[in-house]
Amino acid sequence: MQDLNLPKDQNIYETECPILRAMQILGQKWKLPILWYIADAPMQTIRYNELQRKVIGITATMLTKCLRELEADKLIIRKHTPTIPPTVEYSLHENGKTLIPALNALYQWAVTLKP
Amino acid sequence: MQDLNLPKDQNIYETECPILRAMQILGQKWKLPILWYIADAPMQTIRYNELQRKVIGITATMLTKCLRELEADKLIIRKHTPTIPPTVEYSLHENGKTLIPALNALYQWAVTLKP
Repeated sequence: MQDLNLPKDQNIYETECPILRAMQILGQKWKLPILWYIADAPMQTIRYNELQRKVIGITATMLTKCLRELEADKLIIRKHTPTIPPTVEYSLHENGKTLIPALNALYQWAVTLKP
Repeated sequence: MQDLNLPKDQNIYETECPILRAMQILGQKWKLPILWYIADAPMQTIRYNELQRKVIGITATMLTKCLRELEADKLIIRKHTPTIPPTVEYSLHENGKTLIPALNALYQWAVTLKP
């Protein structure tokens, strides 16, 4: 098993623990569904309006906030095209693409969860 | 990539989405550190007091609550031995063991996160 090199006498939240960093990035309830729908879109690229249609239940404000944070955390890339009206597309950043196998592993684990 | 069979016209939170279930189970800030320290212990088994010493920063109330939830979600097993004083040990349930590879994948992803 991965050498966990867990902190011995320190609050784990006061260390640079990678997996806690991952959970902080992904923890907000809408982040995974948003990433999932971008990853599921053709060419892993999707327009804002289409994303808003797909992620049913999210408000426009929350979608904008989550997209901004996912972009700041470099999981997605935002592309603005000055068409009339302007087009805004989101696609997976390299960090977003390399996350998918780990999410698949988590998905598989959750599917096999014994009740 | 995993066939994501994402819900087409439903709020993903009104479906039985496995990965959202996983995030609900693991989302509370102390759950992962607790699982990590149990997985890291000899024979993946640890006593309550030792766990409390290791998970620095957690209160006894929170530790007890998290352990009860992790037990209810069948990620860990609680064993009570009527010694004097009584001994309470926690170990990984099968579901907890099969989670570790997915957590390792998430750990590896987070380590390679490009700034």
